[in-house]
Amino acid sequence: MTYVIGHKNPDADSIVSAIALAYFLDATPAKLGAINPETAFILKTFNIAEPNTLNSAAGAEIFLVDHAERAQSIDDLEQGTLVGIIDHHKVGISTPYPIIYICKPLGSTASIISELYFRKNLDYIGAKQKELSRSLAGLLLSAILSDTVLFKSPTTTDLDRELAIQLAAIAGIDDLESYGMAMLKEKSSVSKLSPTEIFYTDYKEFSIGGASVAISQVEVIDSAELTSKRGEILRIMDSVCVEKKLDLLLFVITNVMEEGSEFLVCGNKKIFEAAFSTKLNENSAHIPGIMSRKKQIVPMLEKAYCPL
Amino acid sequence: MTYVIGHKNPDADSIVSAIALAYFLDATPAKLGAINPETAFILKTFNIAEPNTLNSAAGAEIFLVDHAERAQSIDDLEQGTLVGIIDHHKVGISTPYPIIYICKPLGSTASIISELYFRKNLDYIGAKQKELSRSLAGLLLSAILSDTVLFKSPTTTDLDRELAIQLAAIAGIDDLESYGMAMLKEKSSVSKLSPTEIFYTDYKEFSIGGASVAISQVEVIDSAELTSKRGEILRIMDSVCVEKKLDLLLFVITNVMEEGSEFLVCGNKKIFEAAFSTKLNENSAHIPGIMSRKKQIVPMLEKAYCPL
Repeated sequence: MTYVIGHKNPDADSIVSAIALAYFLDATPAKLGAINPETAFILKTFNIAEPNTLNSAAGAEIFLVDHAERAQSIDDLEQGTLVGIIDHHKVGISTPYPIIYICKPLGSTASIISELYFRKNLDYIGAKQKELSRSLAGLLLSAILSDTVLFKSPTTTDLDRELAIQLAAIAGIDDLESYGMAMLKEKSSVSKLSPTEIFYTDYKEFSIGGASVAISQVEVIDSAELTSKRGEILRIMDSVCVEKKLDLLLFVITNVMEEGSEFLVCGNKKIFEAAFSTKLNENSAHIPGIMSRKKQIVPMLEKAYCPL
Repeated sequence: MTYVIGHKNPDADSIVSAIALAYFLDATPAKLGAINPETAFILKTFNIAEPNTLNSAAGAEIFLVDHAERAQSIDDLEQGTLVGIIDHHKVGISTPYPIIYICKPLGSTASIISELYFRKNLDYIGAKQKELSRSLAGLLLSAILSDTVLFKSPTTTDLDRELAIQLAAIAGIDDLESYGMAMLKEKSSVSKLSPTEIFYTDYKEFSIGGASVAISQVEVIDSAELTSKRGEILRIMDSVCVEKKLDLLLFVITNVMEEGSEFLVCGNKKIFEAAFSTKLNENSAHIPGIMSRKKQIVPMLEKAYCPL
C-alpha cells in the first residue's frame, strides 16, 4: 500500500497535495493530525472527503508532500519505505538510498503538482496523466491561495499566479479575490479557538545547526484578535519549551493586511535578537515585512546558528 | 557567476553531468580534483575540453550534480549560494532555504539530464532547451555506460537503456558494447596507477548514523591486477582511518566480469560483519553479487548503524 502524507499539524497545502498526488499515483492520501478550519472550508466547498489519519508507516510505501524534515513527518517513518518527496521547503531529511525527490522554490507544493499536470509530466514521477476534475482543480487552487496568502507572501512566484489562473478556469471560479478572502477569513478566525488550539494550528519543529527550534505561526487579518489570549499563549510556550527541550520557540503572529509579524519568543533570546537584528521588548518584537517562515524566518535563524 | 560541480574525486558521470547541465543552464562547468583515466578517454574521444578546477564557492551560485552529500562537495560550499541539485544518490545534505532538487533513482545523473532533454523539459529547472551536439550526446552516453558498468550494475533501469540508445543514435555510435568495453578498459586499467592513486580514484566520505565512514571503490576486469598492490593499499587505509578519524573505511574491488566485490576493511570490523552478514578473513571478505556502493553497500551500512 502506498500512502501520500503531508506534515504534522497539516495546513491546506499538505492535505490538498496529498489528495491530488494520491489521485495521480493511484495511492491513498492520509493526514497526520486534525485538519484546520480553513482546510475544512475548502474540502466542504469542493465536496471532497477528508483523508484518514495514518498512525504508522510500518510496512507501507510512503510518499511525502509539503515537507522534507524528519521532525515534521510520521513518527515511525523508518518502519516504512520512503519512495518519494514533492516539496517546496528546505531540504532537511536524509535517506539511506536514492528516492524520487522533486523540490522547487514555488509558493506551494500544490503549485508543483499542478505544474506537473499542466506540463503533462506526471509520468516523470511515475504517476498517471489523469483528468483533473473541477473539484480537484478547486482544491489545488485553494492550496496555492492559502500558502501564498493570496499572492502576498514573498514566496509567491509568477508561476504560482499563472497556475492559479489556469486552475480557476477549470474550477469555474471567476473572482479569485473574493473566494480567497472568504477562505482567508476561515484561516484567520482565531477568535473561535482556544489558546492551545491556536498554538498548535501551524506548529513546526526544526533542527537548525544541531539545535531544536520550533516555530508556530498564525495569520490574522486584525492583530487585536489575539490580544486577550497572549498571556495564556506565553504560558503554553514556557511549558512546551521545557518539555520538548527546545533551544528556541517562536510564536509568530503574521498580519496579512499589514504584511508584517509580531514575534513571541521563548528560550534563546540572544540568538533571536542576533538573527533579526532587533531588540526584544521583554519577550516580543514586531518586525515589518517578515511574513514567511520558510523564506525569511528559518533562513535568518540558520545564519545566526551557523555563522560562516 | 553560476558553476555546476560534481563530487570530489570526480568520475565520468560527475564531469559529464557538470559539462552538460552547464551547457543547458548557460553556466560554467567545474571540477573538484583531477579527472580519472576513463574520463580523460571520454573527453578525448569526443573532443571536449576538461573543465577547470573550482577552488572556492565564495560569492558564486552553485548547482550540484551527481552528489547530495556535504562531505563530497566543495569545502566552502556555505560561502556560495546553493541554487540546485540534480542527483541519483541518497539525500545527504540539508539546506537553509528551498532549492531546485531533482533526484530520481536512475543509473546515472547523466540519465536524468538526458531525460530532461528528450522530454523537452529543461525549462522545468530553469535551463534552456538547446541543441544536443553529437559530442555532448557521446559524453552523456559514456557517463551512462560508465556509471551502470555497461548496464551490469543493479542500479540500471530500463530508462537508462532507452536513453543510451537514443544518445548513441545522435552520437553516431553503432556498437555500444565495443565502445563500452574500450571505455571500461581505461576505467579498470589500475595496473598503471600507484596504490595511492588507486585508493583515491573513487574515494567518498559519508556520514552514516552520525559515524564517519569512507568507501573507496575500484572496478577491475581481472582481480589479479591488484594483488601486488594490496599490502600497500592496506597500509594507506590504516593511516587514512586514523588521520580522518573514520569509524569505518572500506576499499571495494569490484569485478565487473564476475559481478561481485572483494572488501578490504579498516576500523569498525564488527559493524561491517553485521552489515553484510559475513565473517572477515583477517581484514578482507569476498561478497558475490555486491557491485553498487549507492544501492547496496551504503544502504546495508545504514541499516547496521541505525537498527530500528
